[in-house]
Amino acid sequence: MSEAWETALAETEARDLDALNELLRIPSISALPEHDADVRSAADWMAAKLREAGVPEVELLPTGRNPIVFGSWHVDDAQPTAMIYGHYDVQPPDPLDLWVSPPFEPTVRDGKIYARGAADDKGNAFATINAIAALNAAQGGPKINVKFFFEGEEEIGSPSLPTFVHEQRERLACDFVISADGDMFGPDTPSLTLSSKGLAGCQINLRTADTDMHSGMYGAAMPNAVQHLVQLAATFHDADNRVAVEGFYDKIPELTIQERSDIAEVPFNEDAYRASVNAPALWGEKGYSPLERAWMRPTLDMNGIWGGFQGAGNKTVTPCEAHLKITCRLVPDQDPSEILDLIERHVQQHCPPSATVEVVRSPGSSHPFAVSKENPALQSAAEVLGDLFDRDPLYVRTGGTVPVAEIFQQELGSDMIFFAFGMPDSKVHAPNESLPVSAFKMARRAYCAYLNALVK
Amino acid sequence: MSEAWETALAETEARDLDALNELLRIPSISALPEHDADVRSAADWMAAKLREAGVPEVELLPTGRNPIVFGSWHVDDAQPTAMIYGHYDVQPPDPLDLWVSPPFEPTVRDGKIYARGAADDKGNAFATINAIAALNAAQGGPKINVKFFFEGEEEIGSPSLPTFVHEQRERLACDFVISADGDMFGPDTPSLTLSSKGLAGCQINLRTADTDMHSGMYGAAMPNAVQHLVQLAATFHDADNRVAVEGFYDKIPELTIQERSDIAEVPFNEDAYRASVNAPALWGEKGYSPLERAWMRPTLDMNGIWGGFQGAGNKTVTPCEAHLKITCRLVPDQDPSEILDLIERHVQQHCPPSATVEVVRSPGSSHPFAVSKENPALQSAAEVLGDLFDRDPLYVRTGGTVPVAEIFQQELGSDMIFFAFGMPDSKVHAPNESLPVSAFKMARRAYCAYLNALVK
Repeated sequence: MSEAWETALAETEARDLDALNELLRIPSISALPEHDADVRSAADWMAAKLREAGVPEVELLPTGRNPIVFGSWHVDDAQPTAMIYGHYDVQPPDPLDLWVSPPFEPTVRDGKIYARGAADDKGNAFATINAIAALNAAQGGPKINVKFFFEGEEEIGSPSLPTFVHEQRERLACDFVISADGDMFGPDTPSLTLSSKGLAGCQINLRTADTDMHSGMYGAAMPNAVQHLVQLAATFHDADNRVAVEGFYDKIPELTIQERSDIAEVPFNEDAYRASVNAPALWGEKGYSPLERAWMRPTLDMNGIWGGFQGAGNKTVTPCEAHLKITCRLVPDQDPSEILDLIERHVQQHCPPSATVEVVRSPGSSHPFAVSKENPALQSAAEVLGDLFDRDPLYVRTGGTVPVAEIFQQELGSDMIFFAFGMPDSKVHAPNESLPVSAFKMARRAYCAYLNALVK
Repeated sequence: MSEAWETALAETEARDLDALNELLRIPSISALPEHDADVRSAADWMAAKLREAGVPEVELLPTGRNPIVFGSWHVDDAQPTAMIYGHYDVQPPDPLDLWVSPPFEPTVRDGKIYARGAADDKGNAFATINAIAALNAAQGGPKINVKFFFEGEEEIGSPSLPTFVHEQRERLACDFVISADGDMFGPDTPSLTLSSKGLAGCQINLRTADTDMHSGMYGAAMPNAVQHLVQLAATFHDADNRVAVEGFYDKIPELTIQERSDIAEVPFNEDAYRASVNAPALWGEKGYSPLERAWMRPTLDMNGIWGGFQGAGNKTVTPCEAHLKITCRLVPDQDPSEILDLIERHVQQHCPPSATVEVVRSPGSSHPFAVSKENPALQSAAEVLGDLFDRDPLYVRTGGTVPVAEIFQQELGSDMIFFAFGMPDSKVHAPNESLPVSAFKMARRAYCAYLNALVK
């Protein structure tokens, strides 16, 4: 390739790297109220850079908390509209003493920029601004309509997002969303994400009496809440490690041959995966490979349990209450609310007469997200990545939940294309977060190429 | 009855009640180091009262912590030796705001003395001193040999007792021990206790990885410690609520017809028992009545469980460790150490390959205790109680553990006769502990009558 935008990018490269460092110096930690002004500074900085890049409409749109940096460059009604998603807030840097260089003093070592937010998500997000600036310099602007949507609450769970997107759905209308937040499968291995899982959670509160009891006086004749809860909890999985909640799998299609073969193509070392957390053995639903399970099979996960005495030594108590926290990772077309209905029914059916139980649904449910391999914007992305890396991208999935993907899909009808250039070892959310300088440069090129490729 | 000691008791009654109040004002809380001086004051007070009563040998015998108040009145080598057991320490009074009158300002309401320690055990213990004083005044002393053994660590589990009794076993030699610590079946229903249960405890630590994991990245393919623990814990009981640990019941004789009929004679209202803790239903080993279970059948009690996240809302973690606390209540001839061996074998057998597990034995094991209905000192007690209450005592048992009974039996070869006058509603260990003034008076008379009845 030797496009005009390549030249434009080369001309601004040193300046853009300096500017990225400037952005990385702003401790825009959304979780800490004492950094509210920094978060706002980062928003202002992003808006200013969008304006410098030539984006004609740039605004800070207020939410209940941190503003959305919104930009729009409308060029042609006949062309599709892409909305680029990213975020300008970062995770807290603790524990500080594990950082080799200070988190908000970006430092290059061995070709990597070390700083909080380098990969997640300032490097990616700013590369999209560099790209639009280069397209402006090289060809007078993008060939398709481009919107920018940078939020400031991603690292605190995007609490304002659902309401904001719903209320602003006309302004945000687009044909697809390009997520500039995420990573590649490997440094030389581009990847495209086809799905993320949904989430539904609840807390089970089991009670057997209105007071803890002396186990000598009561233990042999009164119900023990911890015992009843473990017996109830043990009914959630069968001997094949399948979820034993009736109806749990009803809405899930079986994996297709194509899906299984796509997954089988992904390099995955089971033993290295197991050894990475020092587990004695892998575990999971019979009949599926670990990666099939992680990416395409739903789970019922026990996140926490407690009841009775947790101190040192003996306390001879017959506990009257015990609690279990559950979240389910969901796949299409499981519905979070229906799944919680099924769990509630299961719990009531398996609760013995000597206990009472309540299921309290947790906030933060999320639908599963999936994009078809046939989606034209995804196919364009595959072609662009294939050209840039000289190899076809892997089709991957995530077992994690990406609420923003599902929100845009539900509210705008727009699929999300995950197109970002963090590295698997970028240590996002951890000390010594980094982004290779080469990845930043690749990102700038990739966004230019992709935006141009999307033209009809 | 109109024994000479009756007159002596009547003469000192008002003074003895005042003295009891004096003792109850001493906050001898053994669990709280800031009350060490009060604990010591209570010991000194008890020793002084023994001396005033005429007991010729009175000493404070040091232990690792709080002294034993020891007294001895040897009258005749041909007569049996009884050792009276009690304790001068008390439970902490918290929560203070639930007390109607302050815990260490004894107050009489509706004929009951309200104070921490009124029933457990200062009222009972001091009544034995009143009794020996009355026997001294009325007949120049007891007719049998009497020893006194008041400890100051009962409410913290008698940590010094095993070593102390072992080392001092010659000094403590006696034919039987009279426990002045405990209660009657009901205000007008005398009772004699035939057995108490032993205790063996452990903590099960289960691990599936060396770090908590993101449930989206790992939950479908890595072992979850909470899930593994509940599945393991659910194997401890079978569908009949019997303990499913192999060998658990091997050393236990079946209940005899006499034992079942003794228990059936005890007034016991299952529904009131259930309602007392507001349990939806009773629970327990199939084939036995609730009272048979509570008194004569061993249990495996889950006292506490914890692992993973316990906060509000969702945390999508796959926990790498989880913990369960167990104690077993044992009956003759179960051995605590053998039972823990069986549990450990069970746990290892039922631990899946995707987890590792360790069983950490808790300190404080105790053998079960039982005294024969044919024991002569027990039969004397039955006669005395029959006379005093004009009805035969009930033969009862306790599901609780009385380590001191087992220690005296093992070290001195002396059975314990439970002979004390607390009430079932005395609220020992709880706010508003009380002892009826009438119970205190009955106790003083009963100890006089019993000591005299034991003469050969």
